[in-house]
Amino acid sequence: MDNIGVVFLSEVVGTAMLVLLGTGVVANVALAKNKGLGGGFLMVTIGWGFAVFAGVMVSFNSGSHLNPAVTLGLVTSGATEFGSGVPVNVTSVLVYIAGQMLGAIIGAVFCWLAYKQHFDAEPEPANKLGVFSTGPAIRSYAWNLVTEFIGTFVLVFVILGFGSWGDGSGLAALGPLPVAILVIVIGTSLGGPTGYAINPARDLGPRIAHFILPIKGKGGSDWAYSWVPVVGPIAGGLVAGWASLALL
Amino acid sequence: MDNIGVVFLSEVVGTAMLVLLGTGVVANVALAKNKGLGGGFLMVTIGWGFAVFAGVMVSFNSGSHLNPAVTLGLVTSGATEFGSGVPVNVTSVLVYIAGQMLGAIIGAVFCWLAYKQHFDAEPEPANKLGVFSTGPAIRSYAWNLVTEFIGTFVLVFVILGFGSWGDGSGLAALGPLPVAILVIVIGTSLGGPTGYAINPARDLGPRIAHFILPIKGKGGSDWAYSWVPVVGPIAGGLVAGWASLALL
Amino acid sequence: MDNIGVVFLSEVVGTAMLVLLGTGVVANVALAKNKGLGGGFLMVTIGWGFAVFAGVMVSFNSGSHLNPAVTLGLVTSGATEFGSGVPVNVTSVLVYIAGQMLGAIIGAVFCWLAYKQHFDAEPEPANKLGVFSTGPAIRSYAWNLVTEFIGTFVLVFVILGFGSWGDGSGLAALGPLPVAILVIVIGTSLGGPTGYAINPARDLGPRIAHFILPIKGKGGSDWAYSWVPVVGPIAGGLVAGWASLALL
Amino acid sequence: MDNIGVVFLSEVVGTAMLVLLGTGVVANVALAKNKGLGGGFLMVTIGWGFAVFAGVMVSFNSGSHLNPAVTLGLVTSGATEFGSGVPVNVTSVLVYIAGQMLGAIIGAVFCWLAYKQHFDAEPEPANKLGVFSTGPAIRSYAWNLVTEFIGTFVLVFVILGFGSWGDGSGLAALGPLPVAILVIVIGTSLGGPTGYAINPARDLGPRIAHFILPIKGKGGSDWAYSWVPVVGPIAGGLVAGWASLALL
Repeated sequence: MDNIGVVFLSEVVGTAMLVLLGTGVVANVALAKNKGLGGGFLMVTIGWGFAVFAGVMVSFNSGSHLNPAVTLGLVTSGATEFGSGVPVNVTSVLVYIAGQMLGAIIGAVFCWLAYKQHFDAEPEPANKLGVFSTGPAIRSYAWNLVTEFIGTFVLVFVILGFGSWGDGSGLAALGPLPVAILVIVIGTSLGGPTGYAINPARDLGPRIAHFILPIKGKGGSDWAYSWVPVVGPIAGGLVAGWASLALL
Repeated sequence: MDNIGVVFLSEVVGTAMLVLLGTGVVANVALAKNKGLGGGFLMVTIGWGFAVFAGVMVSFNSGSHLNPAVTLGLVTSGATEFGSGVPVNVTSVLVYIAGQMLGAIIGAVFCWLAYKQHFDAEPEPANKLGVFSTGPAIRSYAWNLVTEFIGTFVLVFVILGFGSWGDGSGLAALGPLPVAILVIVIGTSLGGPTGYAINPARDLGPRIAHFILPIKGKGGSDWAYSWVPVVGPIAGGLVAGWASLALL
Repeated sequence: MDNIGVVFLSEVVGTAMLVLLGTGVVANVALAKNKGLGGGFLMVTIGWGFAVFAGVMVSFNSGSHLNPAVTLGLVTSGATEFGSGVPVNVTSVLVYIAGQMLGAIIGAVFCWLAYKQHFDAEPEPANKLGVFSTGPAIRSYAWNLVTEFIGTFVLVFVILGFGSWGDGSGLAALGPLPVAILVIVIGTSLGGPTGYAINPARDLGPRIAHFILPIKGKGGSDWAYSWVPVVGPIAGGLVAGWASLALL
Repeated sequence: MDNIGVVFLSEVVGTAMLVLLGTGVVANVALAKNKGLGGGFLMVTIGWGFAVFAGVMVSFNSGSHLNPAVTLGLVTSGATEFGSGVPVNVTSVLVYIAGQMLGAIIGAVFCWLAYKQHFDAEPEPANKLGVFSTGPAIRSYAWNLVTEFIGTFVLVFVILGFGSWGDGSGLAALGPLPVAILVIVIGTSLGGPTGYAINPARDLGPRIAHFILPIKGKGGSDWAYSWVPVVGPIAGGLVAGWASLALL
């Protein structure tokens, strides 16, 4: 397999791991009869943060983007290669995003399997969709976009900030821990209004899985909202890349 | 003592530490009159994750498997030695597993001693067994197996992923922290349906201790379920080893 | 841009990031209809601690003070340069503090934007001010000063203690993690009486933002208390610098 | 000041920091009108764990024992020097313990000052003593001793296990993080029955402070129990040192 194939597979595997563990923590706190039912928002943020940790651990070969907003933010930041030896160009960007989308769908399917009986036992359709995809606390596409934009800007901007510290600074020694911490804090601090998608693949992939899978009593997939956690994060990532050139 | 004896002792000590601290956090949140009573699922997952941290710290000599699923996953991943200088063969696999089982029983005994009065004060037999061994939220052997399979696959697959990062990547600098984080996230994210045994020794060893110990008002040891957290994790570990060859 | 301009910009960016994420976690737990509503004090302390982590990550160029008490504590500790190549003198101190104040205001504005609808939906004015600035649980300027003094002394004194460990000790390898842990523990352990401002910019900057912004139904900005989280932290930082000469 | 004087001062400073932040988190969750009131057991364990982190950070010069059980465990483990260049002998052991005791008293006094108004506002004397010193959930000196013995054995034994990993293993790179994690897990997992003193100075020093300080409506200092969290931890530390020779 050539380099670009390795990258594709790596993004599939890493994003599947991220989404399995990320959607899993929501299933645990939200679906009927689970041992973690009602475990609280902090538990959800720690679960998602450490889900990213696990996803990064198994996608070394592609530089662990796992998020189209990260890939696109690297482009606008002026990167010439993607942390995997693969050059930045239209093809490689599309391969990254395709891998992320496929991985996100696969991860959501495995979450459904792991929690199959609890999906069946849960009476409320909204709780089922909530495992897969985000939704707003107060629906207003404009303000929801603002929140997702800010959250994703923080994600991509701080990730680009890691680079300033240099390999000898010790920061590299923390491996994926800084990005896990970053995802935890975006959750605690910017996750209230929209549930912090901050990743188009993380939201759209599982929404597609929700739409396709034969989930008992599942209700609609809320396609009306689905573009917000795609457009907001993409815009936030692109602007973060540009901003990093001036501000870091 | 020759090398294999050192490995055996190291696995006994490490698994005893892991199980003492892991079962201890459940005792604290579940048994009557404890200061941590009702401390919540997040506290349990952090307790188990850091229990693994402590177990790894005291089993350097054997490479800190502490789990038959990890040992078997290393075998199917094609490892030729076990991170302890000991070659992979039938004898060494059996020595690892024997040490893990013995350590798990010992750890559970010390947990009982540390919480002796609270076992006595607790009226509900199911809470006592719950300290020692896992049980399903919704009993269905097939689906419980699926959940344990997925959870253990994640554990072993991500551990094998650590290897991709190389010694110079800084990941090694985190010592046992990545595996502790991994165990926390498996708990938060895949622990809802079955309580995440993800380790045959961790579940069967304390179940044996529960069966043998003179625990006041203890009720049955639920042997009908006992094979699920053995077979599911072993299958998950074996498949994770094979999968790592193709996917990492 | 010369060196001092780089430092100014870096402190603006880092403090804005810190305050956005720090005030954000309070908004999430305190404002109506948020997904993290009632998330608890531990979530707030983790949010603020990791907010500092993120702020430090994007202010490498200035040595990441992000807090006038830190800047002043470095002065009294006898530092000759500020971890950024910039010498310690009146001008550089003022540039650091000006950057911190401006950044804090900017961060608070973005928090308001991210939570705009929830500020609108929240009926209680005190909860809105509480997102921006701290207030005492039991109002007594003298005792509130004591608590802020002790909290900031701990912050600056322990930060200065990091230096004792030396670059080769591995502590540097943790990057901004130690200061994040330190901020978490100051919150859990000294945050009860006053909400731990421990940073004049963190408290006064958002208070100015609260005063200026057109927040619906916002009530007063409690200027009567505003000097306490400025004077207490400045005194604590100055004394910590002196104390470090004798005690570390 | 000669070497032994440096060690004494370092243990005073480190233990004062540890006890200030450790007793502080209990004050925050237990005393009336605090912002962290009812914050839960997990918050207490994280507060105490990171209190140790901060204490270690400011006591580099003495090797950061901060606990007579650690000092004595190092003796029985056969150490010839104390991680500070100071040789192991009766004098140095007494200097370490004297510094720890003095520091613990000082730290408790500062906790009282930081929470002065909340001590005054709290109606329940037992909650006030609970900030300073531990007490059993179910009083039985024998079983309480067992629990404290096991908890302290784990603390000292795992700390001695750090040594096996060697300086090049990366573990050193984590600085005080492993011991903080260890203290967290001892709290979550063995803290239920007695509140995990696991440190004679941490318990006796603040008890003396409680006895001496003019705390409003304070009630008795429970001297009848005071020997348990001294004798149990000392025995646990001594045995852990011996056990490390055979088991690590």
